[in-house]
Amino acid sequence: MTDPVALTADLIRCPSVTPEEGGALDLLQDLLTQAGFTCTRVPRNGIDNLFARWGDKGAAKTFGFNGHTDVVPVGDLADWTVDPFGAEVKDGMLWGRGATDMKSGVAAFAAAAIDLVRDTPPDGAVILTITGDEEADGVDGTCALLDWMDANGEAMSVCLVGEPTCPNTMGEMMKIGRRGSMTAYFTAEGVQGHSAYPHRAKNPVPALARLVDRLASHELDQGTQHFDASTLAVTGFDTGNAANNVIPAKCTAMANIRFNDTHTSAALTEWLQAEADKVAAETGIQITFTTKVSGESFLTPPGQLSALITKSVEAETGVTPEMSTTGGTSDARYVKDHCPVVEFGLVGKTMHQVDERVEVAQIEQLKAIYARILQEYFA
Amino acid sequence: MTDPVALTADLIRCPSVTPEEGGALDLLQDLLTQAGFTCTRVPRNGIDNLFARWGDKGAAKTFGFNGHTDVVPVGDLADWTVDPFGAEVKDGMLWGRGATDMKSGVAAFAAAAIDLVRDTPPDGAVILTITGDEEADGVDGTCALLDWMDANGEAMSVCLVGEPTCPNTMGEMMKIGRRGSMTAYFTAEGVQGHSAYPHRAKNPVPALARLVDRLASHELDQGTQHFDASTLAVTGFDTGNAANNVIPAKCTAMANIRFNDTHTSAALTEWLQAEADKVAAETGIQITFTTKVSGESFLTPPGQLSALITKSVEAETGVTPEMSTTGGTSDARYVKDHCPVVEFGLVGKTMHQVDERVEVAQIEQLKAIYARILQEYFA
Ligand SMILES: [Zn+2]
Ligand SMILES: [Zn+2]
Repeated sequence: MTDPVALTADLIRCPSVTPEEGGALDLLQDLLTQAGFTCTRVPRNGIDNLFARWGDKGAAKTFGFNGHTDVVPVGDLADWTVDPFGAEVKDGMLWGRGATDMKSGVAAFAAAAIDLVRDTPPDGAVILTITGDEEADGVDGTCALLDWMDANGEAMSVCLVGEPTCPNTMGEMMKIGRRGSMTAYFTAEGVQGHSAYPHRAKNPVPALARLVDRLASHELDQGTQHFDASTLAVTGFDTGNAANNVIPAKCTAMANIRFNDTHTSAALTEWLQAEADKVAAETGIQITFTTKVSGESFLTPPGQLSALITKSVEAETGVTPEMSTTGGTSDARYVKDHCPVVEFGLVGKTMHQVDERVEVAQIEQLKAIYARILQEYFA
Repeated sequence: MTDPVALTADLIRCPSVTPEEGGALDLLQDLLTQAGFTCTRVPRNGIDNLFARWGDKGAAKTFGFNGHTDVVPVGDLADWTVDPFGAEVKDGMLWGRGATDMKSGVAAFAAAAIDLVRDTPPDGAVILTITGDEEADGVDGTCALLDWMDANGEAMSVCLVGEPTCPNTMGEMMKIGRRGSMTAYFTAEGVQGHSAYPHRAKNPVPALARLVDRLASHELDQGTQHFDASTLAVTGFDTGNAANNVIPAKCTAMANIRFNDTHTSAALTEWLQAEADKVAAETGIQITFTTKVSGESFLTPPGQLSALITKSVEAETGVTPEMSTTGGTSDARYVKDHCPVVEFGLVGKTMHQVDERVEVAQIEQLKAIYARILQEYFA
């Protein structure tokens, strides 16, 4: 039996702060190679990634896992009560950066996969895609692996992403999709002037204020079968003007939209343009915007993969996982174009925080769940 | 004949950048004392001011002038094509800081008053109130002089403020009142949160945006007989938040209101409170504000003083001055509580700017106008 707790601890000791490899992928590659996996490093633009397959390329049943070994920076070291790379165990917890996000997840699926192929070699293949670039921009991580797989005839039948998905209790949630995310950056331009003579100026502030009020008041939708309602949050509005008698020439605002399968970023951009044009026509103020799309919304409709996860989680924890689409973006947004993808992992409460830590028992439970999923999949 | 151009030049050479006296009041005091004026310095809180009277205290007819010798800073010296304190004459212009605002005005009324009392001593009194604190906060300048006058039984029957009042052409405008000015500083407070979960946060930005849009869209009035319409200019709106995924806890805005005799700052504050309360009730966001009142609106209704000025300006320039209430605040807002007050001076185009300058001929014309006003007043 491969010990997922010891493996998590070993991984925490690798200082793989994004985008550093930090020894984490080397460690996994050694272990997987010894267990009979064919390993290939897939570097791109200075980012290191690991592809590992056991079984035949192109096998009809190929179960895939996806995860990352890079971690977010530790922040102010003085705020930690432990060494963030020390992997200390105390109070039943394993402490350190990446303990929940997601060295424990990677260790759990690697351990489950290694035990499977050694103890009960399946009729099919197991692929692990492990990236060193999830916490940063993510474009040279899972994307690079998927591109390389396409080019080399490698494919997964299904994929399970091992990110932490449970808000509070082990087993309570999997993710079968994600809302899309985009940010619009607005600029309203008028003509500067003195506040005593506003008719000689063109004040961009009330115009942009009207636009953001309208955008924020608009109901994008009421949610769909598997998604919460889409939301728009105005996160900034600035003039940078300290002089109370000066009408500024320009102001900016930004709005972040989290959207479900009712929308696409292209359709939302059209809507924003129409609203901006309307306010511009009303006020005579020029309003322009740019957008940054972090990901489109997507859904893996409930099916065999989610049913398999539900059954396995119930068996190991007694909890029925909700099929959720909440949260931010994850690398599942790339995988979904290649095969059905679902995310399931442990409780993510302390992720990205000081004193990140995970219950030791949860790591063992997670490995047991992944092992059961593999067994059932190949049964 | 006292030369107002030479006197303006001498005053420009005194570096009386607010709140420095810079020798300007000393120079005037010497001149006025020699001409038979009783001079009293009225310092308050480190600001120097000059009171000068010719004739009997309490005379039935006491003509007053008001002006200031302090000037705004020169800004970036490198932007000037002349020494701002050099008082150079070229192209028919006298150049330097204070050339228009308002060492020329002070020189013109001092010269006119000195010539009057020497050549045709009137049956009455002439008072000059000259302050060193108009360009800064103004509370220890004209206010100090008026307080001192009250305490010492000194009073003006009428007062002419010598600030530049003509936008483009000499003689075209006097000011018989001023709009009031106040600024409201708003703070909207909500609850910070992640843009992916706006229902867990309370976003103050759209609430404040709604308020400023409403305030800016509201017609305060359509103007009155002597006043333009009141205006409200939103001059700032800031969150100071650069993170597109963070809903900020707080944002601020400011609005400057220029208001005519339809309004008082107290009534406007009530209106702002009602509008803020309405938006707060609609959005659940707490919106508070403070106000800074620079001055209430006031009017010296057209009468003997303005008629006297009109007649004199017409005689010297051939132009009929408009009786205006436009522009920002001036020290007339303090004088109006003591006696009828009107403002008349030369063209203020370059005031507060780099390369401030005045037509030499305008200074001579201004002195002639002031001299004629004095003659007519005491005739
Ligand atoms: Zn992660
Ligand atoms: Zn002035």
